[in-house]
Amino acid sequence: MSTHEGTLFDGLGEPDASLPSGRFASEKVERVLQWFTRCAERSNLEDRFSSVLRQSIDEVLDGQRTGRYDLKDLSKTEKTYLGTKVEIVCQNEFGFSDGSRMDYKISGVDVDAKFSLTGEWMIPTEAMGQICLVMSADDEKSTFDVGLVHVAEEILRGGANKDSKRQMSASGRSAIRWIFKSGRLRRNILLGLNDEKKRLIFSGSTGQQRVNNLFENLLGQMIDRTTVQTTARQLDAPKRVRDARRHLASKGIVILGHQNESVRVASALGIAVPDKSSWISVRLVPAEGRSGYGRQVEINGSWYVRARDDDPAFPAPAVAH
Amino acid sequence: MSTHEGTLFDGLGEPDASLPSGRFASEKVERVLQWFTRCAERSNLEDRFSSVLRQSIDEVLDGQRTGRYDLKDLSKTEKTYLGTKVEIVCQNEFGFSDGSRMDYKISGVDVDAKFSLTGEWMIPTEAMGQICLVMSADDEKSTFDVGLVHVAEEILRGGANKDSKRQMSASGRSAIRWIFKSGRLRRNILLGLNDEKKRLIFSGSTGQQRVNNLFENLLGQMIDRTTVQTTARQLDAPKRVRDARRHLASKGIVILGHQNESVRVASALGIAVPDKSSWISVRLVPAEGRSGYGRQVEINGSWYVRARDDDPAFPAPAVAH
Repeated sequence: MSTHEGTLFDGLGEPDASLPSGRFASEKVERVLQWFTRCAERSNLEDRFSSVLRQSIDEVLDGQRTGRYDLKDLSKTEKTYLGTKVEIVCQNEFGFSDGSRMDYKISGVDVDAKFSLTGEWMIPTEAMGQICLVMSADDEKSTFDVGLVHVAEEILRGGANKDSKRQMSASGRSAIRWIFKSGRLRRNILLGLNDEKKRLIFSGSTGQQRVNNLFENLLGQMIDRTTVQTTARQLDAPKRVRDARRHLASKGIVILGHQNESVRVASALGIAVPDKSSWISVRLVPAEGRSGYGRQVEINGSWYVRARDDDPAFPAPAVAH
Repeated sequence: MSTHEGTLFDGLGEPDASLPSGRFASEKVERVLQWFTRCAERSNLEDRFSSVLRQSIDEVLDGQRTGRYDLKDLSKTEKTYLGTKVEIVCQNEFGFSDGSRMDYKISGVDVDAKFSLTGEWMIPTEAMGQICLVMSADDEKSTFDVGLVHVAEEILRGGANKDSKRQMSASGRSAIRWIFKSGRLRRNILLGLNDEKKRLIFSGSTGQQRVNNLFENLLGQMIDRTTVQTTARQLDAPKRVRDARRHLASKGIVILGHQNESVRVASALGIAVPDKSSWISVRLVPAEGRSGYGRQVEINGSWYVRARDDDPAFPAPAVAH
């Protein structure tokens, strides 16, 4: 279903049938796994889990209010709450009904949602004998893992923490049936920037200046709404982008959106067409006299190519957005 | 500044100067209090605190995804996180910079934000000697309290919980300088409904049906975006409202918004004009032959009045929204 390292149902073989509850557990895990298989036939399951985890992380970071984009800056309370948010967003995304004793009911099976940033899921006493949907995300590597496991004494470590929760043992982890191992998590643009880029962007003293810097310094990169809101520390991303267009026009920079002429211009230049609530900036110069610059695009009767670093600035053509 | 029971600076006298650190503490509290006094001269401070608490509560309830509107349905983790959310939203609303050791710096004074649903604020060890902005909210009574207190040994109870946090003693609470005592919290519409109304509304099996029921059963009441989202369990409230207009037109029900003809119709009928992202429904019948019905409004050349319960249904006139 995808061409990269994320794999669906990369299960590490059948669970060990020699475990006391192995057979029954396997049946329950298989039923839930089948639900996700059917779901993957109708929709892009990897995108949906990516969206669940991206939304959850972004909401708890609350970048629009706090300017934060790094999970390291969350407090302990917020990290704990992130697990709850993932549980809620995941239930909503897939429309799971409530379980009898666990979070969800999937194909008639009670399933508990467990999220951990480190992949060290803490299993509560009440999950013993139940099926857990274990999820983790690595925002730096832009990957996530999702799997199913039947919780049994044999897969847990001995010691419990003060909340009577226990971790899985190394051998216990091999019992996880992976739905996605290194699935592709939508990128956290700001987190991935080097220090120089961050300095250039965040040197702006107003939200608008920082958004201008964002689009000027990240030419050709897809910028999502959360990134604009976190950079601006304001809610109205589309307004900040419209104003950035005015500010950057004299530098020849055009910010393409998902509508009208943007689509044609992006396609003609061979760059990705933004989704709704995403934008991509390009610097244009007249095509005339420039060879080897790649694709050209006609805008208002003139031909343009994407500028190279050493090209002088030409006023940007007006693109209907 | 307001005509109801909410009062600004309803301080219970000066802090006890006989407390060891009384005088110094009083100066710091007074400086912070003055900041809020000046703030109240430029803006509606009560509305701003109401908005901080309403937003925080609504975001953690996450009604759009969970359908919840009662804080009693929050998990322990969510209740703990609510304090963090209030701290973040409050800092953002008032633009406080970070404190050196506490959450905020206000007029050069370090101030820690403390929220509690019960008014039993848990004071951590590190707040000793510091100023706390204590906040609480009662969503059933639609009230909130906000005050300032200098944390000293004398105002705390003896016993600490497992996180080394201590409550204030009854006498210690009298040291709080109130900014608002029973301030007016924006109403949680769904929470305030009786069981019969809830049954009528939530009997709908789709989000659209429930939103139709909402506007049909709460005639003349201001309905905010959160209420629509929680009822629908969907994000796009304006779309649900537009569709509800079509569904309810045959019953003579008009849903007024904040734009165009809505404003004129609401004003003419003498009902509150909705804010942005708020709506109010009214049932109209022809004015002709109806006396004692109160104000009339002309719509598309005909005159209408608000219907009484026993009036038959007339098709609603088209109001430009």
